[in-house]
Amino acid sequence: MRLRNKKWAKPLIAAHPEMISIKPNGQQGTWQRHFATAQPLYLEVGSGKGQFIVNMAQKYPERNFIALEIQEVAVAYILRKQVALQLPNLHLILGDGADLTEYFAGAEVSGVYLNFSDPWPKKRNTKRRLTYQHFLSQYERIMAPAGKLQFKTDNQGLFEYSLVSMNNYGMQFDLVSLDLHSDPVANADNVETEYEQRFSADGGRIYELIAHYPGADKVNE
Amino acid sequence: MRLRNKKWAKPLIAAHPEMISIKPNGQQGTWQRHFATAQPLYLEVGSGKGQFIVNMAQKYPERNFIALEIQEVAVAYILRKQVALQLPNLHLILGDGADLTEYFAGAEVSGVYLNFSDPWPKKRNTKRRLTYQHFLSQYERIMAPAGKLQFKTDNQGLFEYSLVSMNNYGMQFDLVSLDLHSDPVANADNVETEYEQRFSADGGRIYELIAHYPGADKVNE
Repeated sequence: MRLRNKKWAKPLIAAHPEMISIKPNGQQGTWQRHFATAQPLYLEVGSGKGQFIVNMAQKYPERNFIALEIQEVAVAYILRKQVALQLPNLHLILGDGADLTEYFAGAEVSGVYLNFSDPWPKKRNTKRRLTYQHFLSQYERIMAPAGKLQFKTDNQGLFEYSLVSMNNYGMQFDLVSLDLHSDPVANADNVETEYEQRFSADGGRIYELIAHYPGADKVNE
Repeated sequence: MRLRNKKWAKPLIAAHPEMISIKPNGQQGTWQRHFATAQPLYLEVGSGKGQFIVNMAQKYPERNFIALEIQEVAVAYILRKQVALQLPNLHLILGDGADLTEYFAGAEVSGVYLNFSDPWPKKRNTKRRLTYQHFLSQYERIMAPAGKLQFKTDNQGLFEYSLVSMNNYGMQFDLVSLDLHSDPVANADNVETEYEQRFSADGGRIYELIAHYPGADKVNE
């Protein structure tokens, strides 16, 4: 969602180049240098205010995480958390999800998260949805063959679209949940976003889809 | 669902061999002779009391329909309707959905419908679900390459399972609806079953998935 601008956002970002990379075109293959330890790298595309990725970084110290967000003020909220927490396995990118292959090398990423992405409900905006085939091909190019795409949304139309889009792209489904918070197995490891916490407190359904690319087969093509 | 037995069921079935075939193993390739006109053939697996298939036969006179049902008393209810209506494009089978390839020849069927199939929720009964891979392979063998499988259910667990099963089998999704009756496009041509009418009147969600097999590609393999 669009956030109100904050005066402190720009100066905070400018003060922490060690924690945040800005439109990092051409830095493919270099991301491990931002972390205390070289370990598998997970990317969230569209991190909002960052509750999910910060909690993931705390829960999984054996993984590195990158929060990618296009809105300056949103990424500034994440940065404020990171300045306080100094997590050794979290780095931020202010950048565009459409430029992933300009930021990351092939197979540099072990997994991708999409959480409550903009549904872009109008048909003319189909290409902007983060599960449109062009985006799926970018995730495929930057992800290791066994890597998984984890997608959560409360938007029924976007979930219906994404099931068809990811299926037609040739992705293999690992899990589908049509009511994540009522699903004891799928929900056991769930880390909530800010939005998810508020929305599900109001009784709304959360949908989840986890899928991978044909992987090994494609690598040899 | 299981229906109470009726005394009139057996005699009615015995009296109408022209309208109903009983466990028709070995009759592959012969089904068009049961209809007034040779035209594309559609099969419902598990027709219950037959409201759906009877309404479909009335709505689409340019198609032939077969209602397959394993319960004698259920198929007798369909037969009672057909005795009254004498639809020239409807035939019944008392038989087992697990024996489809013993009933039908390759590509004899143009489309398959599954409506509110038994969810078999326990994991040990996975193989009995009509969207288990073994059933999917039977539909594939009897269906023409462009043929579609149309699946409706109100059971969330069965729908989640079926999305994964049909995706993993390699089927291509044409439509996913997570609330069919609220979806103006997907619902426009919807023909309801008895169960669906009652269930959705109580406010329940109906899920629908339409998919096809890789088809032309597979034919040449």
